Parts: sequence; structure tokens; C-alpha cells
Amino acid sequence: MAEQEKEAMLPPKESFSEWYNDLLQVAEIMDVRYPVKGSYVWYPFGFSIRRNVYGIIRELLDKDHQETMFPLLIPENEFMKEAEHIKGFEDEVYWVLNGGTTPLDVKLALRPTSETAIYPMYRLWVRSHADLPLKLYQIVNTFRYETKHTRPLIRLREITSFKEAHTVHATWDDAAAQVDEAIRLYSEFYRRLAVPVLPSKRPNWDKFPGADYTIAVDALMPDGKTLQVGTAHHLGDNFAKTFDIKYEDAEGEQVYAHQTCYGVSERSIAALISIHGDDKGLIMPPEVAPVQAVIIPILFKKSEAVLAACNDVKEKLEAAGIRVTIDDSDKRPGSKYYKWEMKGVPLRIEIGPRDLEKEAAMLARRDTGEKEQVPLASIVNEVIERFAVIQFSLLEKAKEELGARIFECETLDDVRENVAKGIAHVPWCGEEKCGLEMDEQVGAGILGIPTDQDETGTYKCPVCGKDTSIRVYVARTY
Amino acid sequence: MAEQEKEAMLPPKESFSEWYNDLLQVAEIMDVRYPVKGSYVWYPFGFSIRRNVYGIIRELLDKDHQETMFPLLIPENEFMKEAEHIKGFEDEVYWVLNGGTTPLDVKLALRPTSETAIYPMYRLWVRSHADLPLKLYQIVNTFRYETKHTRPLIRLREITSFKEAHTVHATWDDAAAQVDEAIRLYSEFYRRLAVPVLPSKRPNWDKFPGADYTIAVDALMPDGKTLQVGTAHHLGDNFAKTFDIKYEDAEGEQVYAHQTCYGVSERSIAALISIHGDDKGLIMPPEVAPVQAVIIPILFKKSEAVLAACNDVKEKLEAAGIRVTIDDSDKRPGSKYYKWEMKGVPLRIEIGPRDLEKEAAMLARRDTGEKEQVPLASIVNEVIERFAVIQFSLLEKAKEELGARIFECETLDDVRENVAKGIAHVPWCGEEKCGLEMDEQVGAGILGIPTDQDETGTYKCPVCGKDTSIRVYVARTY
Repeated sequence: MAEQEKEAMLPPKESFSEWYNDLLQVAEIMDVRYPVKGSYVWYPFGFSIRRNVYGIIRELLDKDHQETMFPLLIPENEFMKEAEHIKGFEDEVYWVLNGGTTPLDVKLALRPTSETAIYPMYRLWVRSHADLPLKLYQIVNTFRYETKHTRPLIRLREITSFKEAHTVHATWDDAAAQVDEAIRLYSEFYRRLAVPVLPSKRPNWDKFPGADYTIAVDALMPDGKTLQVGTAHHLGDNFAKTFDIKYEDAEGEQVYAHQTCYGVSERSIAALISIHGDDKGLIMPPEVAPVQAVIIPILFKKSEAVLAACNDVKEKLEAAGIRVTIDDSDKRPGSKYYKWEMKGVPLRIEIGPRDLEKEAAMLARRDTGEKEQVPLASIVNEVIERFAVIQFSLLEKAKEELGARIFECETLDDVRENVAKGIAHVPWCGEEKCGLEMDEQVGAGILGIPTDQDETGTYKCPVCGKDTSIRVYVARTY
Repeated sequence: MAEQEKEAMLPPKESFSEWYNDLLQVAEIMDVRYPVKGSYVWYPFGFSIRRNVYGIIRELLDKDHQETMFPLLIPENEFMKEAEHIKGFEDEVYWVLNGGTTPLDVKLALRPTSETAIYPMYRLWVRSHADLPLKLYQIVNTFRYETKHTRPLIRLREITSFKEAHTVHATWDDAAAQVDEAIRLYSEFYRRLAVPVLPSKRPNWDKFPGADYTIAVDALMPDGKTLQVGTAHHLGDNFAKTFDIKYEDAEGEQVYAHQTCYGVSERSIAALISIHGDDKGLIMPPEVAPVQAVIIPILFKKSEAVLAACNDVKEKLEAAGIRVTIDDSDKRPGSKYYKWEMKGVPLRIEIGPRDLEKEAAMLARRDTGEKEQVPLASIVNEVIERFAVIQFSLLEKAKEELGARIFECETLDDVRENVAKGIAHVPWCGEEKCGLEMDEQVGAGILGIPTDQDETGTYKCPVCGKDTSIRVYVARTY
């Protein structure tokens, strides 16, 4: 698409918000010019990232979940059944009122999330303890009438890529174990995107409407705000009671089931591109890069030998399952570098006459800029090895950056100073009053209690001064 | 899901409508009990068929199309731009009028199809002849407020799986060639589902609203009605003019682009299961079968040797990329046969002590019921060869059945008699008046002019008696 071919300069990544918006357009992830607020268009390049990212989710879930698909439209009476749930969503729901020119008999909600679409069916599907656990997921579009400032991939009115899993278990403990398992799955998912995440249990006032509790994973964005990139909810038997989901236990008794649900969305892609990218554009981990390697023939004059060598390398890499392309366009090399760096291609392979004399190629890493000459004879192994190194080093770099921006704080002043830069780790007595007061005082709320909390120490709540063994994350959030 | 484990009897396939409805439920394709008319739930098993079927579509399109995703919600002003298009859809559009409890400023349509969502963006994306052809597709949910009788997979209010491609070309002829290419792609797609289809050019009164012309592919259902399972539309420069999609040609002139769009939906799965299935349930072509082979250990008493042999075969087949499962449950063999036949598993592999003595296994074909003993040593090749034979013979059988139900007709009486059984192939003068009259007289409409029409003969229009070289398909349709 011609207009993107100009060499637009990105703002520096330090100006994160401008950098992010421009990057989405220039690297062709999302087009923000669609004429409905909060709805955006996936460019084909962006969508190919989505394919790879969601391929990983499917791979992880398919081990013991099954994929399915439920309708978008939820009748008002089903939607209105669970009181807490409604309270959480009623201001955000889009309502379909007309079919053609006729008003509908029953108002239809566009799902903001699918509990109330799925659980009436679970009522029919769950019969016996032998049916449990039931673990299904779907990847669908969901809708929230957001009144806050919308932002592509992050705060949307149409979430195009909501992966939601809904599980049913015999006991409360089984469901709790599944919530832990969900967080383990999400941590693994993000590890494969080279994105380190922090799991924490949300404070009660911030849990999912209708849940017993919520554990979430957050990523730290370059501007020091956290982005919630996955949540897992223990629903207890709350929805089971509302939707009458019972099973016959081993003794022949009818018992309410226990449930969980957990979701990730295209926010995973927002984190992926924000955390790794730089002033030159995207930096893609090899596993999810639409193009993993680009071959650039260095042609002082038209050289058949160079082009033949490039094609030979391309064939070998393709045979090894690597997503590779040759850029043999007439553009000058600098212009080609610009383009493929913007798209985050992990490795650039340059082959010129002087390389050929040495039966070698030049590899340039996108993440570090390092260049290295390698023998053509072993090119496939050289490339595969470097992919592993890049994947590893992106994750290590991101972990270091995250670690350097978690600050141990004891007082509200400490917190105030540090949440501007990242995450404060601070004592909390556990009282909602103190939690909300902290939020008010420092302009940043309690994210949650880290799931790997060591509760053997004794600290003082910076608001009320009471002794506590709990320390929480406090951060500015998206 | 327990309730489906009972051995429900299907009605005979002769009673097609009842058979179809029951099969969807008993074989766990779609659950029809969702509380919104025309919206159905994909069972996980049904969804795994969808995955395989849509995997083929993606494979075919990815050769020279790119996948993308556009928003569901279309603002009223964009939707209302193309006059013919509106006329075709206005009675069928769902309108979102409220966000939360607030009426929206601009009414939002749920896309019935995405021309009016995509083309405002194409206006921005298409700049130069170098951008053309542009070939994008998406797989999304679309909505039609159907007032006719709804039916799972066939006539839906939420089409969950609409694959729509939208292409832009420099000239009318380029777009015409793309329409032909789309029909070629669809024919190939259906060949892989072992479903023979008939391509024909729709009469003018039945073309896509806003198109120059429409070519469709139809499958013949067991009850003799045709099911439109794919359409390709030449849009000329009609939408380009409405949405101002222009490109700069080689001479530097701004010229309107030419466009096509083409779609298939989950009707592909309706055809797949209807055409191949029998009184015992589904018959899946191996390529799209969620389970391609099931191994049944024949155990007179607990035999470690038999189970070991079954596991060994399973491992070998899996290593060859075959989707295989062992049914070593405690159910009696008859009950296992029932279950896997219902699910359409192409090959059943039975291994018992007597087979083991001969170092052999018994293969049973789902499509013909034929059983054959084969050596364990070459089991992988035996299975792969049979898959090819089954795939081929399902297609041949379907072709024969289709061929036997296309009837050469010369008079309206001929047509009337034969459209009860299938498709009439009958002369037509080309006048709309005669076409509609024929419809009225025989209770079946003109499907279209076969694209492989040989126009060298001379026939008489059965309505007006005029000479014509055209023969058309006439059929009862879904």
C-alpha cells in the first residue's frame, strides 16, 4: 500500500504514546481511520502477527481444552440474570433494538463477555460428574461501549480477538486449581512472546463482576504503566446457581457445579510490540514474526551469481520451515533496511559479491544491530541458532527492564515518587479503606497481591500504620 | 456430554429434513437450543470440522490473498451510500441503537456483508496501479435478520463463519478474470470436501445488490433442492464510484478501480455432511475428519498384547500425521461402532487376539462398510492408501448422484415433473418475463446459466417458444 512506502520517521520511543500510535500505522499493524470510534482495522501484516500469536494460544490450550463458538447476541432476560454481573457491565453494553425496520420483541446484547451466552447451554450439557471437568474456549469478537479514551489493541469498543475459556468443575478446590493452571498457561504464552508478566490477585473491589476472586497477569509498558494482559476468575458456584448448572455426583446427588473463566485479548499484541520495539520500529521475536528473515542481495552491478545464491539460501531456509523473503526490488539498500527494520524482521541476511568470494553471508540482528559473517554451507543452522539467541535475549532484556522498575516502597512518599517510573511494591493491611486511600493519595491504585508472595515478613501499612505480612503492587494502569 | 451417549436412532436419510436436524444434535455438530432464533452453538466436535474445512480455504487463498479483519459495526451513513446495495439488505439489517443506557448518535449496522465497512478503507489504501491487484479476505461473523424459516448452517441470523474476499483491479476485464478465478478456487475447495458443485451465472434479477453480475456454485442436497454454497460478484466500478476508490494509472490519470467480492460460509459444512452422511450418521472425507481413524481393541479377556499392539499402531499413525484415537473404554464393541460411525470416522481399525496371531489388523471403511485384513507391518501405508481411495470414491459417488439428478427438459411439463427430483436443464430465451413465468408455472426458479455452456445448439424457450442457444438450470432452492 503505497503511502506507507515513504520513509516516515517514528517519534522516539521515549514519547511512548506518539510512538505507539505512529508505529501501528507505519508498520501496518492497525489502521485507526475506520469511521467508528474504538473500532480499528487489522492490516494484513498486523493480522499475520495475530495469526502467529493466537496459534500459540491454541497450541497451549488444545492440550486439554476444546475450541467452540457461541453466538454473539444474548437475549436481555439471560443477560440480566446474574445481579453482580449486570452491575459490572450494564453501562457498557451495546443493544440491538431493530431487525430491519422492525423493533425486536426481545432486546439483544452484543456480548461484552460470554458467561450469559454459554452458561444456559452448560446447564443442558453438564449432567454427571463424568462430564467434568469441562474445558472449552472460543476466540471471538466482544463489545464494550467504552466511555474512556479508546486506543488500538488496548481499549476498544470492538475487541476483535477475545480468547475466553470457560471451565466447569465438581468442587471449589478443583476450580481454584484451574485458575492457577490458567495463570501458568498465560505465563507460558507470554514467555513465548518474550513478554514477562506479573501475576497478582486483584483486590476485592477490582475482581470480575460475579466472581469469588480474580488473578490477573500484567505487563509493564514503556511509559511505566501496567497493562492487564490476562485474567482468570474463580466463579465459585455463583453462576451455577443463577443458571442452574448441576451435576449428579458419585452418590447420585444433584450438586451445583463450580466454574472458572479466563481471557486474553489483542492486548497481548499491544504488549508484544510495545515492549520490544525501538525508535526504528517493531522488533519481533522470531516465533511470531510474520517474516523471520529477509535476504537482501547486495548488487553493485546486476549479478546473476548473487541472485542465484540468494535464491538458494531462500530455498534452504524455506525447506527448514523458516518464513523468509528476498527483497530484490530496485530500491537502494538503505531504503530496504528501513522497511524491514520497521516490520521487525529478526534477521537480515545480506549477500554480495565479496561475501560470495568467501562463500559467506552477513547476518544482521534486528534486536542488537550486531553483524556477523557466517558460512553459506551452514546457513540454515546459523539462522536457527540465532533465532534461539534472539528469542532468549529479548526475554532477558525485558525481564531486566521489568525488574529494574519494581520499587520496594515503605511510605506513601516512596510510592508517589516511584509509580511515575513503574511499579511500587508496598505493604498493605488488607483493608479496602486503606487501599482506596492509597489510590487517592498517590494517584495510582493497588494492582494486586503477587501470587508468589512470601508472607513471613512484618511491614507497616503506609496508610493506617497497622502491622501486616502482605505487600502489594501499586501502579498506574491502562 | 452424557446425554449424547445414548444410542439415539436417526430418522432415515430419506426423511432428509428430520435426519439433518437430528444428525446435527446427535453427532454433536450444532446445538439448536440456544435461546435466540437463528443463532446456534458449535459443539466442539462440529467446530473441529469447521477448523479443518476453513484450514483448506485459508490454504487455497493464502497463495495470493492476504487475511485481514474489519470491524463488525458499520455507521449508518456509510451503509446507506450505495443505493442498490441498501435496497438488497435494508430489511435484513440488525441495528445497534443503544450504548449502555444511552441512545447512540449514529446508528450502527451489524454487517450483513462487509462492502460498506471495507471500501471506505480501500479508498485510503488504493493509490496507484502498483497497488493493484489488491486481494484481501476475512473470516468473520455476519448478521441477517432472516424472516424465512431458519435452519442451522443453512439459513442463519448469525452466520458465524463468513469467508469474504474483496479484490481491487485496474480494469473491468481483470476483475472478470478474478471472478473466474474465484469460481475455480471454490470448485477446488469443494473438490477437497468431495462435494461436486455446479457453477452458473445467476439471472439478472438474482445477482448481488450493486453487482454487474454474479456467478454462484450450487450443491445438490439429498432432497433434490440446490444449496448455494459460494458466490462471486463482479462489482464493476459501481462501488468504486460510490466510495471514491481511484488509482493513478501508468499515464498519471486518476481512474476508478474495478472490484470483485466472493464468499463462502458454513453452508459448505451443511453440504459436506448432508451429501456424504447416511442412516448411521456422518461420513467424513478423511481430509476434514476430526478423527481420521479409530482403533478398537477386541478384548475377549484383558489382553496386554492387544492393547500394546493398539498403542503401537496409534503411535505409528500419529507419527505419520494421522488424527487417530483408541477407544479402550469399557463399552461393548457394538456401542463403540455406533459412536464412531455416527461421528463419521473414515476408518475403523480392529485389533484382536486372532488378528495378532496373523500379525494383522482389520480395517473397516465407514463409507462402504467393507472390511479387510491388512498386515500390521505396513499399517501406515495401508491406512494412507485407503484414505486416498475413500476421498476419491466419496467424490465419485457424489458426482454420480448429482449427474443422475440433472434432467434434460424441453417443456414446462418436463420441468415440473423433474424439479421434484433434482435439477432441470432447460432452454430459456433470456427474457426476465419468461424466467419469472417459468418460476410461477413450475414452482422452481432459474438457478443460472452453466458457466461451461455450449451455445452452439438451437432450442425453444418453453414459455414463449422463441429460438435460443441457452439452456439454464432450474431447481428448487434452499
